[in-house]
Amino acid sequence: MPQELPVRALTDRLHRDLPEGRVVTDRAVLAGYAHDEAEWAPHALPVAMVRPRTAEEVRAVVLACLDHAAPVVPRGAGTGLSGGANAVDGAVVLSTEAMTAIRRIDPLERLAVVEPGVVNEDLRTACAAYDLWYPPDPASARWSTIGGNVATNAGGLCCVKYGVTRDYVLGLEFVTGTGELVRVGRRTAKGVAGYDLTSLMVGSEGTLGVITEVTLRLRPSRPPEHTVAGYFSSVVDAGRAVAAVAAAGVTPSALELIDRHCLQAVDAWKQMGLSADADVVLLGRTDAPGPAGQEEAEAMLRCFEGAGATWAARSTDPQEADALFEARRLAYPALERLGPVLTEDICVPKSAVPEMLGRIEAIAQRHDTLIANIAHAGDGNLHPLLITPPGDQAARERAQAAFHEIIAEALALGGTVTGEHGVGLLKRDGLRAELGPAVMALNRAVKDALDPRGLLNPGKVTGR
Amino acid sequence: MPQELPVRALTDRLHRDLPEGRVVTDRAVLAGYAHDEAEWAPHALPVAMVRPRTAEEVRAVVLACLDHAAPVVPRGAGTGLSGGANAVDGAVVLSTEAMTAIRRIDPLERLAVVEPGVVNEDLRTACAAYDLWYPPDPASARWSTIGGNVATNAGGLCCVKYGVTRDYVLGLEFVTGTGELVRVGRRTAKGVAGYDLTSLMVGSEGTLGVITEVTLRLRPSRPPEHTVAGYFSSVVDAGRAVAAVAAAGVTPSALELIDRHCLQAVDAWKQMGLSADADVVLLGRTDAPGPAGQEEAEAMLRCFEGAGATWAARSTDPQEADALFEARRLAYPALERLGPVLTEDICVPKSAVPEMLGRIEAIAQRHDTLIANIAHAGDGNLHPLLITPPGDQAARERAQAAFHEIIAEALALGGTVTGEHGVGLLKRDGLRAELGPAVMALNRAVKDALDPRGLLNPGKVTGR
Repeated sequence: MPQELPVRALTDRLHRDLPEGRVVTDRAVLAGYAHDEAEWAPHALPVAMVRPRTAEEVRAVVLACLDHAAPVVPRGAGTGLSGGANAVDGAVVLSTEAMTAIRRIDPLERLAVVEPGVVNEDLRTACAAYDLWYPPDPASARWSTIGGNVATNAGGLCCVKYGVTRDYVLGLEFVTGTGELVRVGRRTAKGVAGYDLTSLMVGSEGTLGVITEVTLRLRPSRPPEHTVAGYFSSVVDAGRAVAAVAAAGVTPSALELIDRHCLQAVDAWKQMGLSADADVVLLGRTDAPGPAGQEEAEAMLRCFEGAGATWAARSTDPQEADALFEARRLAYPALERLGPVLTEDICVPKSAVPEMLGRIEAIAQRHDTLIANIAHAGDGNLHPLLITPPGDQAARERAQAAFHEIIAEALALGGTVTGEHGVGLLKRDGLRAELGPAVMALNRAVKDALDPRGLLNPGKVTGR
Repeated sequence: MPQELPVRALTDRLHRDLPEGRVVTDRAVLAGYAHDEAEWAPHALPVAMVRPRTAEEVRAVVLACLDHAAPVVPRGAGTGLSGGANAVDGAVVLSTEAMTAIRRIDPLERLAVVEPGVVNEDLRTACAAYDLWYPPDPASARWSTIGGNVATNAGGLCCVKYGVTRDYVLGLEFVTGTGELVRVGRRTAKGVAGYDLTSLMVGSEGTLGVITEVTLRLRPSRPPEHTVAGYFSSVVDAGRAVAAVAAAGVTPSALELIDRHCLQAVDAWKQMGLSADADVVLLGRTDAPGPAGQEEAEAMLRCFEGAGATWAARSTDPQEADALFEARRLAYPALERLGPVLTEDICVPKSAVPEMLGRIEAIAQRHDTLIANIAHAGDGNLHPLLITPPGDQAARERAQAAFHEIIAEALALGGTVTGEHGVGLLKRDGLRAELGPAVMALNRAVKDALDPRGLLNPGKVTGR
């Protein structure tokens, strides 16, 4: 627990240096800013939460925290799933939620310049008016912010074809750990002037700087998608269908897996009338233009059938197709209603998807733990969701053991511990296992070089 | 000039630690390894050139140089245009040209694992056998190596649609400046485990590590392209056509500009029978599948005509289209036959292309310097080529003044000093002007963190 007097000196300074209304010290409000969606990860009540509105205000927060040696924990909408925005003792949470301006959408250069607090879906809507498209679409798109998406290098459903957030960040403005406001990257289509500090910042979870502006690459709007759905009686069959799609040379614009646990949870919550006939549903989409789209959809359908789908069809009803994808997006909050959820984010080679799904099933049985599965199956990014009954400590311990085993199996299959959620606090052990000591040392050297005072989001990613 | 005795101690050590035939100290051979294609940039005769065949041999070179405090200058095929591979006094040039194995091409995961000395076009040919495609296609593709392409983040003709080398590098193995062999990145489709050291390495011009293996993302082979050619009576008209293509929402798979000087030089060399009726030729391509390709080609044609093309047509003869693109690729070596060439690599916003081309013309007149233009016009990446008669010192000084003015004008228009060639030695002043002191300091901090002994390619990029 931080000392009263130093805390008071810091909050007084923040009140003095920032306009009225930016600084919050009310404990009830602070409680809502103590952690993100990773409730299993450690967290503490921050000493203050600040909502700056400009880059200079962000700078004022960092400078005050530098002078008072108080950690700065940057935060977007708090939808993170790894604890990357969890507060630590004595910290100031710097929320970018009030920096919501879309400063520019440029159809000719195909770029957008936005403040970090812009909600992903708000940007997508604004782009659509110019016949442009910002692809990265995390399931949290309706709530999560661009700043948070950049900090975690968020993925999403269409990333199987269009890549992740890093692929769309051209440039950044940010405040460094020493309180300087800098601009990296570019607004041109190409550029190799100096080291790629932009990509380094993307996915660094607020440990290297506080983002104050993002320049994003956009794409032209795309043709309507064709949807193919397949029901399978086992996750392993569905996994084989995924591998078959990759082998057939099809590039789906989404290829999602949802298991029975998720479908039931969503249906119980939203009464969408989802069928629970299947153990697993695969949802494929293609947005290839014209006849190529129909051909890819047909090819995907044949892959589903060939892998043993109990039922598969091309959806001719856009509403029905959208409902299935809506169920996919709602799976996580729906499961959270059943009890604390521990979220995995492993990514394995596509060919290893069936094997990995089989191993997850075996782990669930071995540890007597309910593991639901949603997955960006097309790029091998699986989200086993470990659910425990509220208050059941033994179940919690079994789930934690299962969690570590899933990570170990993913690494054994040539995978990574985090495909898109970030390391945060939950994946720090996994990170060390994945990278090994030499690469961990390189990561720490980068952290020390760019945040020499260790001010920014301490303990996250590298553990520094 | 390095002292004889320490040099002898180093070369003895290299001979001892590496297999027979790897180490070259013959001065006539060394002269060919003293610089890349940037003959205007400073360079020195290295004390040795080593051609390792394995990662462990690369490590042995780095360890020997560490012990003898000798700079290591990594080198691919030496086709660089900024002096990034130019040797410095006392240096050992580490050529990756003997590491030419394509270790794996995996159609299911759509990736390739290659040694750094694999020639770009050899990889492309090998991929084609699997119906796969490695997009980045620098004009030097026939000679340049993947290691060099990665070190400079090479671009190319199709990058206007498909991105640059960094967009295709999934993972790297490299030897650090402290002699450790490490692996960064991944072989999965996604991954956010730790800082993006892979992107940091890409474009770092051998200043942060010596690459020993590259894992590359591949794409499926694409449909045949449609070609549109347009002749213009001024570079500014051609620039307006480029801006019109972007404004029309077309995404060409190439959009190249070649001016009369280049066409004449290529024709004088290769007797290709190229027309010299035009001051500028624009070559557009689209690879959209099926009818979409024809529509995009028609749209591009209308843009060319609307911008004042004196003649424009869709090419129905693939041989004719290929000849025009061959002329584009041969422009640089053809111009080199006329005298020393100083190569620019500015990239400006697409909307600024006509203005920038106009300013280049004015600068050429003001400094009485022959400036030929080739450009990846579709992404605003212009390559004004400043040519001076051999031995004419006054012309050389005028060209250098023009060179600096072009860089200043590009920055004034919101551009960058290097779109794809890298900073090397030639763009170091421009880099400082572009980044400013705070971001230069971040670049230097990264260099110091990852190469604490300052062993790797000293003087390049950051000047460290």
